[in-house]
Amino acid sequence: MRDQVRVVLYGVGAIGRMVAQHLLRRKGYIIVGAIDIDKEIIGRDLGNVVGIKATIGVEVTDMVDDLLGSVKADVVIHATSSYLKDTYPQIMRCINAGLNVVSTCEELSYPWLKYPELASKIDRAALEKDVTVLGTGINPGFLMDTLPIVLTAPCLRIDSVKVTRMMYSGDRRISYQKKIGTGLSKKEFEEKIKTKEITGHVGFFESIAQVASALGWSIEEIVELPPEPVIAERELKTTYLIVKPGQVAGLRSIAYGVVNGKKVITLEFISHAGIEEPYDEVIIEGEPTIKERIIGGIHGDIGTVAMIINIIPKVLAARPGLLTMKDIISISASLGDVRIHLPRARLY
Amino acid sequence: MRDQVRVVLYGVGAIGRMVAQHLLRRKGYIIVGAIDIDKEIIGRDLGNVVGIKATIGVEVTDMVDDLLGSVKADVVIHATSSYLKDTYPQIMRCINAGLNVVSTCEELSYPWLKYPELASKIDRAALEKDVTVLGTGINPGFLMDTLPIVLTAPCLRIDSVKVTRMMYSGDRRISYQKKIGTGLSKKEFEEKIKTKEITGHVGFFESIAQVASALGWSIEEIVELPPEPVIAERELKTTYLIVKPGQVAGLRSIAYGVVNGKKVITLEFISHAGIEEPYDEVIIEGEPTIKERIIGGIHGDIGTVAMIINIIPKVLAARPGLLTMKDIISISASLGDVRIHLPRARLY
Repeated sequence: MRDQVRVVLYGVGAIGRMVAQHLLRRKGYIIVGAIDIDKEIIGRDLGNVVGIKATIGVEVTDMVDDLLGSVKADVVIHATSSYLKDTYPQIMRCINAGLNVVSTCEELSYPWLKYPELASKIDRAALEKDVTVLGTGINPGFLMDTLPIVLTAPCLRIDSVKVTRMMYSGDRRISYQKKIGTGLSKKEFEEKIKTKEITGHVGFFESIAQVASALGWSIEEIVELPPEPVIAERELKTTYLIVKPGQVAGLRSIAYGVVNGKKVITLEFISHAGIEEPYDEVIIEGEPTIKERIIGGIHGDIGTVAMIINIIPKVLAARPGLLTMKDIISISASLGDVRIHLPRARLY
Repeated sequence: MRDQVRVVLYGVGAIGRMVAQHLLRRKGYIIVGAIDIDKEIIGRDLGNVVGIKATIGVEVTDMVDDLLGSVKADVVIHATSSYLKDTYPQIMRCINAGLNVVSTCEELSYPWLKYPELASKIDRAALEKDVTVLGTGINPGFLMDTLPIVLTAPCLRIDSVKVTRMMYSGDRRISYQKKIGTGLSKKEFEEKIKTKEITGHVGFFESIAQVASALGWSIEEIVELPPEPVIAERELKTTYLIVKPGQVAGLRSIAYGVVNGKKVITLEFISHAGIEEPYDEVIIEGEPTIKERIIGGIHGDIGTVAMIINIIPKVLAARPGLLTMKDIISISASLGDVRIHLPRARLY
């Protein structure tokens, strides 16, 4: 059997740690490096940081170029920031070290429309170094782009695509509950919208651009409305705090894409502590109309970690360049030893 | 802009005619040949046969080798039979003429397990002639294989996959209603099961094999149980006839795949004239469990025609050989002029 897939973690925060925990349990993977800027974990062994084993022989480091320049690896799992302005130099360092990249960076999931120059630079560098770069996750990456794209396959005509994520937030990470304004007053919420401490969902723009591109629609305009607070009507208990009636339970965000003067792609993200029946829904109006629903929805963190891990063999087998989900071979879980999924991959 | 995509229809039955009607309305396609054995339509112009235009300058012919040997075309849309023993020589003639093939043949959707030798022969011939061959449709091709495969992407662990197609039959083609035994007595139904006039759904085996292959599961056994009649409890009116209480309203079929001694993939097909709330459902038990449903289901004929048409640009851009849906680039509708979807395709 071929060598194990050698992975570097770039970003050992909440998602990076979950990825590490799962990779350490899976066959066919070996983690060979870990990068973070958090002084609390620099110098500590990754096994200890993620709580799986006392030591795995990999110390977390902030010496990015030293590590990337010397490590023998196949792929970097990159999970540091949602924004391409932050992640662009990090991604380029990985590419220049000759490493494939799978990133959770939301704006990397389809950067061609918002950042065409950065996207071209990443693409050219990746082609030159013969590596593949992909941004993915549960959303963007699956629920509001890949899944609706796949669901259009049985359609002869499409008038519009609408996706709604109705997500219960009361059991999510505390940092997430804060991010959607849980427990704030309406005034505090509106203040934090102004200061951009509350941004709503990041990835609407990219998902709309990707769906339009997959369908062959020329998008004229993408509009992201500011998030609105959802006010609690009754007391709501979460893992973070108790939301009193009149306080903010979470938020509602909406964005749409315009083609030929019509709103043809609408994405709605509703996340608060009072949702009793969460779901993820896709409605494609056309011939035929398709009404699809995932009952209970998909947990964001688990979904993102799974997307990242399942896509690794697809990325290693893909053509070089900056890819987006619509360029990837039909996606699926990759169970068992990852190496059985790699008949033609370029491994170190 | 590049030349139009030149299409030959091999099989001008119900599905072939629907494909022709849609291709004649779309930009970027031109139909350059039509093959059938039906004496009623041989020698007639295809435009007239499908009722779109008086003439399009293409006569239906049964002279297969004459047509395939002389026509300049990019792809054959093949829709003649569900069974590879019937379609194998037809597919090989297309390949030997240097033509890509998209086929509705159910057994071609994943022939590697049931017919490994024929599959290898098709694959080798396709590689030699540098063409791509794919079997697809709504089912097999989407509902019981591609869609559940894609839905596994956010899963870290999968214990089982179950797909249920709950399909109302009362508005389907009369030939279809006959095929599921509508209006028969229970005894007549059982007789037709024995004589194989009623076969139930064709494609269970292939869908199970494809899902297992995509997930990296080694399948030990695939069991297809004989279809059972569903008896009408009240009078049911269909486009074909009136089903009286006690008569057969349709059928229920089930099949499963075994891995490590456990039934891990279960496919259930229920189709009769008494279904009031049709749906297509996928349940993936695992981490996380995913419960997905298409409310109302997807109409079989429309879905198959759409799958065939939407996949053409993907097949023209794909690598040569005998492919299955899991090998195809992430699928979607291909709206507008097909040529915008063909940046790197090999056209005649």
